Amino acid sequence: MITQGVGIVALQYFHSSRPLRLASGDYLPEFTVAYETYGTLNAARDNAILLLHALSGDAHAAGIHHPDDRKPGWWDAMVGPGRAFDTDEFFVICSNVLGGCKGSTGPTSFDALRQRRWASDFPVITIADMVNAQVRLIDALGIEQLYAVAGGSMGGFQAMEWMAHHAERVATAVLFATSASSQAQAIAWNVIGRQAIMRDPKWCNGWYDPNDPPNDGLAVARMIGHITYLSEQSLQGRFEQRFQHGLGPRYTLADEFAIESYLGYQAMRFNQRFDANSYLYITKAMDYWDVTSGHTSLAEALVAWRKPTLVVSFDSDWLYPTAESQKIVAALQHNGVAVTFFELSSVAGHDAFLIEADLQNPIVLRFLLENR
Amino acid sequence: MITQGVGIVALQYFHSSRPLRLASGDYLPEFTVAYETYGTLNAARDNAILLLHALSGDAHAAGIHHPDDRKPGWWDAMVGPGRAFDTDEFFVICSNVLGGCKGSTGPTSFDALRQRRWASDFPVITIADMVNAQVRLIDALGIEQLYAVAGGSMGGFQAMEWMAHHAERVATAVLFATSASSQAQAIAWNVIGRQAIMRDPKWCNGWYDPNDPPNDGLAVARMIGHITYLSEQSLQGRFEQRFQHGLGPRYTLADEFAIESYLGYQAMRFNQRFDANSYLYITKAMDYWDVTSGHTSLAEALVAWRKPTLVVSFDSDWLYPTAESQKIVAALQHNGVAVTFFELSSVAGHDAFLIEADLQNPIVLRFLLENR
Repeated sequence: MITQGVGIVALQYFHSSRPLRLASGDYLPEFTVAYETYGTLNAARDNAILLLHALSGDAHAAGIHHPDDRKPGWWDAMVGPGRAFDTDEFFVICSNVLGGCKGSTGPTSFDALRQRRWASDFPVITIADMVNAQVRLIDALGIEQLYAVAGGSMGGFQAMEWMAHHAERVATAVLFATSASSQAQAIAWNVIGRQAIMRDPKWCNGWYDPNDPPNDGLAVARMIGHITYLSEQSLQGRFEQRFQHGLGPRYTLADEFAIESYLGYQAMRFNQRFDANSYLYITKAMDYWDVTSGHTSLAEALVAWRKPTLVVSFDSDWLYPTAESQKIVAALQHNGVAVTFFELSSVAGHDAFLIEADLQNPIVLRFLLENR
Repeated sequence: MITQGVGIVALQYFHSSRPLRLASGDYLPEFTVAYETYGTLNAARDNAILLLHALSGDAHAAGIHHPDDRKPGWWDAMVGPGRAFDTDEFFVICSNVLGGCKGSTGPTSFDALRQRRWASDFPVITIADMVNAQVRLIDALGIEQLYAVAGGSMGGFQAMEWMAHHAERVATAVLFATSASSQAQAIAWNVIGRQAIMRDPKWCNGWYDPNDPPNDGLAVARMIGHITYLSEQSLQGRFEQRFQHGLGPRYTLADEFAIESYLGYQAMRFNQRFDANSYLYITKAMDYWDVTSGHTSLAEALVAWRKPTLVVSFDSDWLYPTAESQKIVAALQHNGVAVTFFELSSVAGHDAFLIEADLQNPIVLRFLLENR
């Protein structure tokens, strides 16, 4: 199936042989960033947009890799001719985060020094580290200034990191369903997910057999995450108290609720595509996230950022609720920044930023073209 | 330490040697219910109140078992002279649910037929089964009609089961933070908790060594539950993004957030006092809970109940939110029942019904005395 979007695309790799100093004081001697691009970089090299993915995302934001692919990239409905990130107009880039398991250097990668997998020798990283690796990629692509950074959830964390610490490299920013710092409840869900993985005997302190990873722990972590991404209303609407087979209870400890089968299936799919150690490192980076750290206020932390900014939240998102977006809006307004803010109505919960393309496309398209 | 409440109390046991037919069609050949009582049954035998506990509760609702006990029973602040369940006035009973691990027959009990632990041979039970066991206890105590049934969360499920199917045995009912049926999100959290236990290799299909139980799975299940019992605001207020040791991140996969240490401690305590199989059976009973089942409406399901009813919800409870209590209130009002409804303001989330004694005591005391 060929989408009407960007069509067939290929994953590319940028390798930096220079060390990357990390927030922890540690460093990576070298690293790779996997990325994809859609559209064409113009002669002025000023039409690039960097898309930033969330916890379980990757560089494959749009299009398909192969004609037989059943699903396009994670933000396909937002990327392509006439879509929000309009590939007739913009050169769209999306890279897999550092610490990820989809081509960028992370715990599944080979550690040249020790001549083995990084596994839990991989250094703990932060959102700032992820962005510093992206800066190298943008440098390598010969882009002085991105026209926009855009991301939802942890992608929004990265966008804010660009705003706070690389303001001169970006002309506009689009934030979806995000927060300026991790709140206690969001940290708690990540903590419990990590506990599920690290208490799985197969985790082996991170040194698991890649062919026999801690899938049970990762499955439980994913189930927890999945429920936090959906709203109570959408869960009730889709699953109610329904049984997967038949009308009544079977009075068994085995799976029988429709929500039970759904979660089991989602977890199984996640096991096939994600690495347990990457889940630990990326959620840890999320939990450390606080752009205000080292400053007395969010406005002060964002003082370097004076560019047009679009902030979008969703009324049913309880993981990064509207109140978190409003804090960002207030800080930017305090700094005299031109902020456009929308709280969109959707039952899709936190996942709305991945799903509600029809709601987001016109808003984002207009914002990007108006500030061109 | 002697509390100013009911003082030193002892756990008692009621044994029924008659079989108990279960909702599943299966039966228990005999069973025991552990219970405690506070206050004195009057000559008319009409001053008894049955307290009904939640998932992780037990028969020890008030007082202490030993002068050295560090903590009194789970609803101690609500039970005693001058408290809501006034032991100068009422004979207060609390029993451990069927399927529990605190003295009542459950998966940790001895199966006389097979001459071994019940473990996962224990039949799957329902809220109705729990209440049918309680009916036997009340019969044995020579009580024709309870003055009140009262419970929060799953305790409220049991109270509603009494209202719907044993209306003639009860004069008033008090429901806290509860629901007439389990909603999809609440089921999902229980499903994930059960998955954590059943995916723990030590679970062994329920046949674990009692001295080496699936503590990691039960710990993760408890952590999930714990967060659902608290509000986002209270978590943020207590833990923020604080580190347990020192001011800054240590850049490690090991525990470092205050919320992380807290959850680990809570889970460790829960492992010491709760059985993993009981957790499976009781959460399954909760997930089946739907008092409307077999009826066309909640009002129809509750048609037998015509007695004064007090319904209490909490504005920060997102597990059994106020909307669930309002459905119960609406159905009872439709039936012409005298309902008193309070939505109380608290940051304590679902746990408020266990904590906010100062808010609840005057309301409950007044309701119980007015309808005397």
